[in-house]
Amino acid sequence: MNTAIRRPTFFVSDRTGISAEGMGDALLEQFDDVKFKRATYPFINTPEKAHALVQIINRAAEENGVRPIVFSSIADSNVLQIVKSSQGLHISFFDAFLGELEQELGVSARHSVISRVHNVERYDARMEAVNFALNHDDGVSDKELKEADVILMGVSRCGKTPTCLYLALQYGIRAANYPLTPDDLGTTELPRMVKPYKNKLFGLTIQPERLHDIRQERRPDSTYAALQTCRNEVADAQAMFRTHNIPHTNTTHKSVEELAVCIMQECKLKRRF
Amino acid sequence: MNTAIRRPTFFVSDRTGISAEGMGDALLEQFDDVKFKRATYPFINTPEKAHALVQIINRAAEENGVRPIVFSSIADSNVLQIVKSSQGLHISFFDAFLGELEQELGVSARHSVISRVHNVERYDARMEAVNFALNHDDGVSDKELKEADVILMGVSRCGKTPTCLYLALQYGIRAANYPLTPDDLGTTELPRMVKPYKNKLFGLTIQPERLHDIRQERRPDSTYAALQTCRNEVADAQAMFRTHNIPHTNTTHKSVEELAVCIMQECKLKRRF
Repeated sequence: MNTAIRRPTFFVSDRTGISAEGMGDALLEQFDDVKFKRATYPFINTPEKAHALVQIINRAAEENGVRPIVFSSIADSNVLQIVKSSQGLHISFFDAFLGELEQELGVSARHSVISRVHNVERYDARMEAVNFALNHDDGVSDKELKEADVILMGVSRCGKTPTCLYLALQYGIRAANYPLTPDDLGTTELPRMVKPYKNKLFGLTIQPERLHDIRQERRPDSTYAALQTCRNEVADAQAMFRTHNIPHTNTTHKSVEELAVCIMQECKLKRRF
Repeated sequence: MNTAIRRPTFFVSDRTGISAEGMGDALLEQFDDVKFKRATYPFINTPEKAHALVQIINRAAEENGVRPIVFSSIADSNVLQIVKSSQGLHISFFDAFLGELEQELGVSARHSVISRVHNVERYDARMEAVNFALNHDDGVSDKELKEADVILMGVSRCGKTPTCLYLALQYGIRAANYPLTPDDLGTTELPRMVKPYKNKLFGLTIQPERLHDIRQERRPDSTYAALQTCRNEVADAQAMFRTHNIPHTNTTHKSVEELAVCIMQECKLKRRF
């Protein structure tokens, strides 16, 4: 088989497709040498949309001369059968497991799409957490630290802000962040402001070389961006974390998702929705 | 069987577990009347961690007198076999599909955990998008609108900010937001500032009653929060969207994920990583 072609791959869902993409990608990443050409089709929740998609999948099969891979997360049996009538290798998460779950649980599944009932509480928890992260980014007061579920501490540009936002959006966690500035460093004493909240602290570190690259983008050739500054700041921050037994992790090789999950686990945080 | 007990449910992964949770939850939501007691175990990537987890699963089985459900996303066959030796109904996404994919693709899968190689480009695209959303939240300049991939437009508190942040984190999309203030409303003319970027606009609307509730929280009993104000503003905004054929959606019953996917689709945006 010609391995140079990119295998057409479809992620199909009756809702957003975010889960089908996530699980499908985890499977595809197990194949190092194969290239995939991805397309996502969300909200496929009617026979009409399913029929239209079948045409698209079949066209991809013909144009590429190879069977597409179709990951699907579709609850409605009728819609699913239409999608499965297309020319593809069908990996259907609902087909594969709903029967087994029905047997185990002793009840029938709905087999119909659930538009997640709008949950006002869920929305409010999320909004509150997002607003918390936005309002308390890089400018914290005592009141705010008191209300925080967790306080991320680290030198400027080590990855605090996106991690706080992800914690808010994904888990409804109120994450404040405390930037360690040169004023705080050069000593292993905890900054006065965060001292009362030691049990909420989580430290982020980073490779000095990577920090240098990031800061260069922002303020080229400044003292702030100099490699030596980065080395000193990171070393001081790490010494502080170690002295006070503050749990910490290195952000250099981690995605925002990995950081968030790692913090949830280390700080034993519970999702708020 | 006693349906009053909450069935212990484990989401187990050698990485973050976010995909296993997403797909597992989609399956569980198909069972309306069953209650589940969820726990996530991320980073189960060694035999030692797997053995420790087996103990936890078996203890849950004994304490609850019912077989736990175990969703797992684990690539390493050895680690997976250990997890599967626990007392549970095992729904293993890798077990179920890797063989089929190997056959179709004509190559072997790695069967080992991939710590997603840190992709600097991916990180940078994401950071840039997050910074873009943060810097351009509710205060836009012409330069910023020019650089935006999409501009979300809507009345105050209709859901623009979390949607922009989610678009940035999940897809690396640069989403600006333009708040429609009373100055902009009362006419169907597009605000001067966004007029040159009509093709990037996406409108958000909301039920006036829900908007009233949200604004009440923020500024109780103000003119801003009054139901009549909310009704007028929403009606004016909708008239503006319709007059200029601006694609739009109602946020009232949608999650942030659904809004983001809907916008990606309607505006034909391509993820930046």
